[in-house]
Amino acid sequence: MRILTGIQPSGTLHIGNYFGAIKPAVELQQRGDAFYFIADYHSMTTLTDPAERRKNTIDVALDFLACGLDPKRSIFWRQSDIPEVCELTWLLGTLTPMGLLERAHSYKDKVAKGIAPNFGLVAYPVLMAADILLYDSNLVPVGKDQKQHVEITRDIATKFNQTYGETFVIPEPEIREDVATVPGLDGQKMSKSYGNTIDIFGDEKATRKKIMGIVMDSRTPQEPKPDADKNLAIQLLKLVAPADTARDFEERLRAGGLGYGDLKKALFEHYWNFFAEARARRAELAANLDYVNQVLAEGARRARAVAAQVLTRARQACGIG
Amino acid sequence: MRILTGIQPSGTLHIGNYFGAIKPAVELQQRGDAFYFIADYHSMTTLTDPAERRKNTIDVALDFLACGLDPKRSIFWRQSDIPEVCELTWLLGTLTPMGLLERAHSYKDKVAKGIAPNFGLVAYPVLMAADILLYDSNLVPVGKDQKQHVEITRDIATKFNQTYGETFVIPEPEIREDVATVPGLDGQKMSKSYGNTIDIFGDEKATRKKIMGIVMDSRTPQEPKPDADKNLAIQLLKLVAPADTARDFEERLRAGGLGYGDLKKALFEHYWNFFAEARARRAELAANLDYVNQVLAEGARRARAVAAQVLTRARQACGIG
Repeated sequence: MRILTGIQPSGTLHIGNYFGAIKPAVELQQRGDAFYFIADYHSMTTLTDPAERRKNTIDVALDFLACGLDPKRSIFWRQSDIPEVCELTWLLGTLTPMGLLERAHSYKDKVAKGIAPNFGLVAYPVLMAADILLYDSNLVPVGKDQKQHVEITRDIATKFNQTYGETFVIPEPEIREDVATVPGLDGQKMSKSYGNTIDIFGDEKATRKKIMGIVMDSRTPQEPKPDADKNLAIQLLKLVAPADTARDFEERLRAGGLGYGDLKKALFEHYWNFFAEARARRAELAANLDYVNQVLAEGARRARAVAAQVLTRARQACGIG
Repeated sequence: MRILTGIQPSGTLHIGNYFGAIKPAVELQQRGDAFYFIADYHSMTTLTDPAERRKNTIDVALDFLACGLDPKRSIFWRQSDIPEVCELTWLLGTLTPMGLLERAHSYKDKVAKGIAPNFGLVAYPVLMAADILLYDSNLVPVGKDQKQHVEITRDIATKFNQTYGETFVIPEPEIREDVATVPGLDGQKMSKSYGNTIDIFGDEKATRKKIMGIVMDSRTPQEPKPDADKNLAIQLLKLVAPADTARDFEERLRAGGLGYGDLKKALFEHYWNFFAEARARRAELAANLDYVNQVLAEGARRARAVAAQVLTRARQACGIG
């Protein structure tokens, strides 16, 4: 079974990204042939700074490799190293009704907000269909918000197969239902746009300061806290500390006698330890970018071997070349 | 000066196509570096028969080579042999406002007719922009109906240059003003959709029959015909006969004494002679498709040398790869 994951190169990643996306993505390696690509073509629809795009692309490669993506086991490449995906976008686009694209949430949302959409936004689901179909992907694990795009992919692939004969594998979406929603430093969902994040690979001093700065209520340490499970630090601790340790802290907070300062200090220590191995690996990789580029080049070579077959099939089917 | 011409592979060509498009296109070879491509990707927006697309592509290659396109002097290739154009389509599309595309006549016409447009129709001008910009084209001679597409190309190129730094040559459109409008067998503009065409390379017997079947009025041969210049056969004769011969027939018709049958017979003979050399060349080429494919492959090789440079420039500029 071939499982495809697209990775947005959107800058510094936080622990919300880790538990919500990176960890489940990396775990796919145990379920089948995992294919991962860094979606730098897609990033062009929102980012027009070339230096930032390059930096984000390399950063996200480092992040995923550090967090356990194993390039021996899986295939990991930069989308734009296989420009064939743009050709497939054209082939698919000629059979895609505009109505299908105009019903896409991402498009409708922008139009509803009065934002003049650009062509890239409209074309986005067609490129995504090409991303998926070019590798004969069987399974595409996505967040709920991306499910529609996989459905659009299925519609386009079905239309192509009907028009030009059996060409594409019809992929299945898999919705990540049980994904942890990670609270941010202010209790809202952790999100870069809220400015409430804890970075995965943040600077030690700055992150400590961030965590120690989490605002708690004014109850004294001695007071029992029956709502200990609602405490933000406890919730975060449950993600980064061993289960029994987190439970122990929760009980102590509930019973009274544990100060918020001590709790936050423990949270920082466990956060720091949780990512210690990945942090060391990332530093090592960052000092050896040649190796990282080599990994991506080798990934592109292997991905291309699949892509070339599928594209030849598609070109043959529609009488191109 | 680099001059680009896109050629639609849309089936059998008639003499309206010859005088309106092929002849002026072939003459561009005398004005600069002429680049010609057969737009098979574009054909996907209207044609979904793969065998017909392949046949039309080869046919139009034969037609142009027979009519004087000189592959030693010019560059002639099949669009889909350089799929890089699809990658450039993506890069350009991410900066193209939908409003620009929704104002395109071809799009507006379809929508006005209540036809649900497909994505390919919307994307068409972006691919055309990529066609033009990928080869640093200076001049794009087009019919009036295509002028807007070159203007869209200029807008997109300017936007890209402003966003990512000077990358593309801004092309100039050149409108073919003095192009002969060729009347069809029924006196309307010659057009495949009216079924009133004389094919360039039509079968001898069938074409003779078509021409002899042109409906004239009921005046006797002896009657003088002061409106001789309006006579359809005279108009067609002016295209395919030497100027003095055509003038002579016109005078004889005007004075009276020339029968319509003799006039049509003369028209057929001159038509047949006019294309005799091209017809012989086409037969020779059709018997040697290996050579034709070799011409297109060599053209693609030379076009790619230009395309690769431009694409590298564009990728560098926007931080891709």
